[in-house]
Amino acid sequence: MMIRRLVVSLLSIGAIVTSINVSASANEPIQPIKAVKPDNPDLVELGKMLFFDPRLSKSGFISCNSCHNLSMGGTDNIPTSIGHAWQQGPINSPTVLNASMNLAQFWDGRAADLKAQAGGPIANPGEMASTHELAVEILNSIPQYRAHFEQAFGSDKVDIDRVTTAIAAFEETLVTPGSRFDKWLEGDKKALNKQEQEGYKLFKSSGCSGCHNGPAVGGALYQKFGVYKPYKTKSKIEGRKAVTGKDADLHVFKVPTLRNIELTYPYFHDGAVWTLEEAVDTMGKLQLEREFDKKEIASIVAFLKTLTGEQPDIKLPIMPASTNKTPQPQPF
Amino acid sequence: MMIRRLVVSLLSIGAIVTSINVSASANEPIQPIKAVKPDNPDLVELGKMLFFDPRLSKSGFISCNSCHNLSMGGTDNIPTSIGHAWQQGPINSPTVLNASMNLAQFWDGRAADLKAQAGGPIANPGEMASTHELAVEILNSIPQYRAHFEQAFGSDKVDIDRVTTAIAAFEETLVTPGSRFDKWLEGDKKALNKQEQEGYKLFKSSGCSGCHNGPAVGGALYQKFGVYKPYKTKSKIEGRKAVTGKDADLHVFKVPTLRNIELTYPYFHDGAVWTLEEAVDTMGKLQLEREFDKKEIASIVAFLKTLTGEQPDIKLPIMPASTNKTPQPQPF
Repeated sequence: MMIRRLVVSLLSIGAIVTSINVSASANEPIQPIKAVKPDNPDLVELGKMLFFDPRLSKSGFISCNSCHNLSMGGTDNIPTSIGHAWQQGPINSPTVLNASMNLAQFWDGRAADLKAQAGGPIANPGEMASTHELAVEILNSIPQYRAHFEQAFGSDKVDIDRVTTAIAAFEETLVTPGSRFDKWLEGDKKALNKQEQEGYKLFKSSGCSGCHNGPAVGGALYQKFGVYKPYKTKSKIEGRKAVTGKDADLHVFKVPTLRNIELTYPYFHDGAVWTLEEAVDTMGKLQLEREFDKKEIASIVAFLKTLTGEQPDIKLPIMPASTNKTPQPQPF
Repeated sequence: MMIRRLVVSLLSIGAIVTSINVSASANEPIQPIKAVKPDNPDLVELGKMLFFDPRLSKSGFISCNSCHNLSMGGTDNIPTSIGHAWQQGPINSPTVLNASMNLAQFWDGRAADLKAQAGGPIANPGEMASTHELAVEILNSIPQYRAHFEQAFGSDKVDIDRVTTAIAAFEETLVTPGSRFDKWLEGDKKALNKQEQEGYKLFKSSGCSGCHNGPAVGGALYQKFGVYKPYKTKSKIEGRKAVTGKDADLHVFKVPTLRNIELTYPYFHDGAVWTLEEAVDTMGKLQLEREFDKKEIASIVAFLKTLTGEQPDIKLPIMPASTNKTPQPQPF
């Protein structure tokens, strides 16, 4: 970050930038994703265990990974998620990959950061349907978990603040560097073929990058869905209006990341669109008042598929066994 | 295996066995678990992907790993499993760990082997609720999957026979060597403390090892549950009778493995018992007509906890993305 800021400063006074790697992407609306090296690996490891532990749900069946499946682009690849007792969720699960780069969490930005987000689903009756108190009681009853809290935090106290801190620390590591697009940005001009490069040019010239920009190619601002025409949906989700109370914020959403978009179907907050071709067509019509032709759509889709990065290398955590004192799950 | 058979032959004619490692366990009813080195790693890798892929279910939400969770001893740690649309399963999910050592699969042994088992839940309306045809159509629509079939089988044909062959090949690798008990069997006399050794002695002398024996400490024979007194349960499961049609097979079940038993709670086919202490107490009363006292139960439980082996080292597979031709999941 410091180097990039410095480069921007230098550019702003007209100095010549000599670093090829930096200059290649300095004028682009998208920046490469950098690998994350965690400060506290014990905290990340604890967070990984918690992310995969279905005991954070009332049923003992649903974990964070159920709807943010790290085998599937950090999503569940269904229109809206399945919650406790198979309740139908109101909205499409956003990917957890690169989510640390979002200006806020959830489609409507109602959580300031990953830590604030992490507590939500645990206690949401339509999702994991537990309570923070029960989740803490369960973890606290397991000496092996307490030992992990001790390692991560310096004492074995378990509370929801620490639980969500650990989950967020793990999620911060879930970035996807190394995409073909990032290689191209960093100077490997053979990393993209002609169609993909044309798609990227069109992505910029037609205005997509006005909202989908930054390292996450999205996540940095809110925008109305349906700028020129309303989006037809059965979903009753209001977007930012539910947070701000303002009518002007009806159907305003956080712009989603386009990183790994090939993996995170179906698309939009209602998960109603299954193909990238239809998603691009819809975005052109509603957001840019532009009818992309078939060839244009194909080239933008080809570009979008170059945004798939290296997926997180996850060793499946082994859960510490419950003890005779651990509250039992209530699946039925 | 050949060495062990040879040793048994030598013992049977009274020859002196000189190998310490083999002799240490030659007279024991339990044998150590050996690590598995697969013949065809590509087949195992494909099987792992399929094991974790929820697209084998109608909803796109349930995978093999949902109920045989490799983070949790190869089980779901709930009394009976959750199926499609949150249907309550009739029976406790048996662990997939060391399942290759079972004489047959399912509690009632209705599947001859892991391959025969693997097809069951996919097409069971109460479990994954898909069909073999749909599962094959989905996989066949994904070029990356076809490439994995090509690598594993020499051609890219996808059919249910190959799907279940691959899942079984992966499951055959899910063994748990290296338990403290196995170390003790193999000659490390410090691997068990006094209480654990006493527990093992009592496990043998009281008759537990009459059924729970072999490398899996179970899985090798069928036995009536409730030899001396009937087991009180709300479950209507008939056991082997459902397979053989014989009244004598009512409440006869495959003896479950005790490997990793500390991780595979709750216990029995109805999953009604949550503690090892209660399970041991019940087994003593019903199967051996014996009232273990508190100290005896504690020592047997201490021994049972030494049967937890090294859990499979699983790198979470990354699912190949569905394509525009892939049939969509039907979660609701």
